[in-house]
Amino acid sequence: MIIDRLFDQVEKKGPICLGLDTDLAYLPEDFYPELRLKDRIFKFNQEIIDHTSDMVAIYKVQIAFYEQYGISGLEAYRDTLAYLRRKSSLTIGDVKRGDIANTGDAYARAHFSGDFEADFITVNPYMGYDTLEPYLDYINSGQKGIFVLLRTSNPGAKDIESQMVASKSIYQMVGDTLSQMGKDYMGSSGYSSIGAVVGATSPEELKTLRKDYPSMFFLIPGYGAQGGQAKDVALGLEDGNGSVINSSRGLITSHLESGSTDIGRYAKIAVEKMREDLEIERFL
Amino acid sequence: MIIDRLFDQVEKKGPICLGLDTDLAYLPEDFYPELRLKDRIFKFNQEIIDHTSDMVAIYKVQIAFYEQYGISGLEAYRDTLAYLRRKSSLTIGDVKRGDIANTGDAYARAHFSGDFEADFITVNPYMGYDTLEPYLDYINSGQKGIFVLLRTSNPGAKDIESQMVASKSIYQMVGDTLSQMGKDYMGSSGYSSIGAVVGATSPEELKTLRKDYPSMFFLIPGYGAQGGQAKDVALGLEDGNGSVINSSRGLITSHLESGSTDIGRYAKIAVEKMREDLEIERFL
Repeated sequence: MIIDRLFDQVEKKGPICLGLDTDLAYLPEDFYPELRLKDRIFKFNQEIIDHTSDMVAIYKVQIAFYEQYGISGLEAYRDTLAYLRRKSSLTIGDVKRGDIANTGDAYARAHFSGDFEADFITVNPYMGYDTLEPYLDYINSGQKGIFVLLRTSNPGAKDIESQMVASKSIYQMVGDTLSQMGKDYMGSSGYSSIGAVVGATSPEELKTLRKDYPSMFFLIPGYGAQGGQAKDVALGLEDGNGSVINSSRGLITSHLESGSTDIGRYAKIAVEKMREDLEIERFL
Repeated sequence: MIIDRLFDQVEKKGPICLGLDTDLAYLPEDFYPELRLKDRIFKFNQEIIDHTSDMVAIYKVQIAFYEQYGISGLEAYRDTLAYLRRKSSLTIGDVKRGDIANTGDAYARAHFSGDFEADFITVNPYMGYDTLEPYLDYINSGQKGIFVLLRTSNPGAKDIESQMVASKSIYQMVGDTLSQMGKDYMGSSGYSSIGAVVGATSPEELKTLRKDYPSMFFLIPGYGAQGGQAKDVALGLEDGNGSVINSSRGLITSHLESGSTDIGRYAKIAVEKMREDLEIERFL
């Protein structure tokens, strides 16, 4: 099961997920100005990957940042995923797709094979559990996994996810179902290849969810730029391995203040600082 | 406001939305075999568009079907949207994106400008109303509109959308908020550029929603291949203009049985049959 590969990476390197939310605004003007857009973006990502892959469990590539540049941007998305695969680094395609029937099948093919193939993708469950069906054969094969949006890190999470249905919130209701579904796709690590996105910005909820769903691997966004603190994130790590903590802007933009083009070195220092902040040594 | 252009198109041509969910399986083997994948897909769409644009209010292009072919597929998606724009036909990018903050902004740029520019896009509200913010400036400019997923046409709609929070379902709660938000983006037609996706497969709910949200334009999927009947869809049309009824497979695959490569002519006949089935003449 792919989730076991992620578990092993966390054992070896700690629970950091590095988010490649690469925007052209993050590229210094004199960073390979001679290259085409797609190659400049790829080169930026490549330098970050080369300097951090020994300290990062998994890379999350946020497709929106590539879609905004149209075809050229998506060529950089494709090339980044391919490079990570060649380096045997694990990948999450942060696509938050969620659709049904033959449309859902097309999304599964789009992101679990071909140009945009990733090891995991994020999935939006709003339309119902039939949005998950297209992914199950891939998960069952052991090769792929998903992280389903449960309780996200944004203020708007209160609007739908946290609404109470009888005595449970929508996100608990979804979590209960996913946790049950996930039992059919368990790895030897004790985790399922059906994971969940749970934000770091609501630490008490994170703590409760961590206890309620012990076999669900968590992708935890919201640390750093979104305001999540190390002490909050630590609640997701209390039981040891079983989560990855994502940081995007916090790790890939630290060169900006200095104006340096030494992207990789700055990213490496930022990852080291995050490791210290999270006291990752405790878990290794 | 863009919604007025859609209203006018429905006045002139009737309420049909033609879904270009183009899968390679729909292309006969001898349909331009000498062309590259992206051009074959584009050519297929072009023939359908050329034969139907006088009877179709708006085209919905489902991006999943293009994403499944990677960069080449998305080149066909780009070329299809550009062709529709050149022909002054309105477009919905059926992307169901929904994300927040700078990621949401990137999706808005991706689908309201550049390679993938459409007049309307579909939006998934699961993460909360802050997923809508990135689109509001575009809507306010009068140039763009959105259709937010409310009560979709799939069986799984019961899982989240139809869950009851106090005395309302999630979809009514979302609908109430959107209807209120939409008042800031009203066109002269009496409709808002913030519309909603409401499936044809639950006719009673469609009927209620039509009455509850009189200023919200509806995109109605589920007719045809998904089982929605003309009499069900008619409930969304009772008050006249204010909805478009989507059909995808029902309109773009009718050549398959005959094995004909005369794609455009078959699509035209299928649209004519749908017009008769819906008794569209009543509304024109």
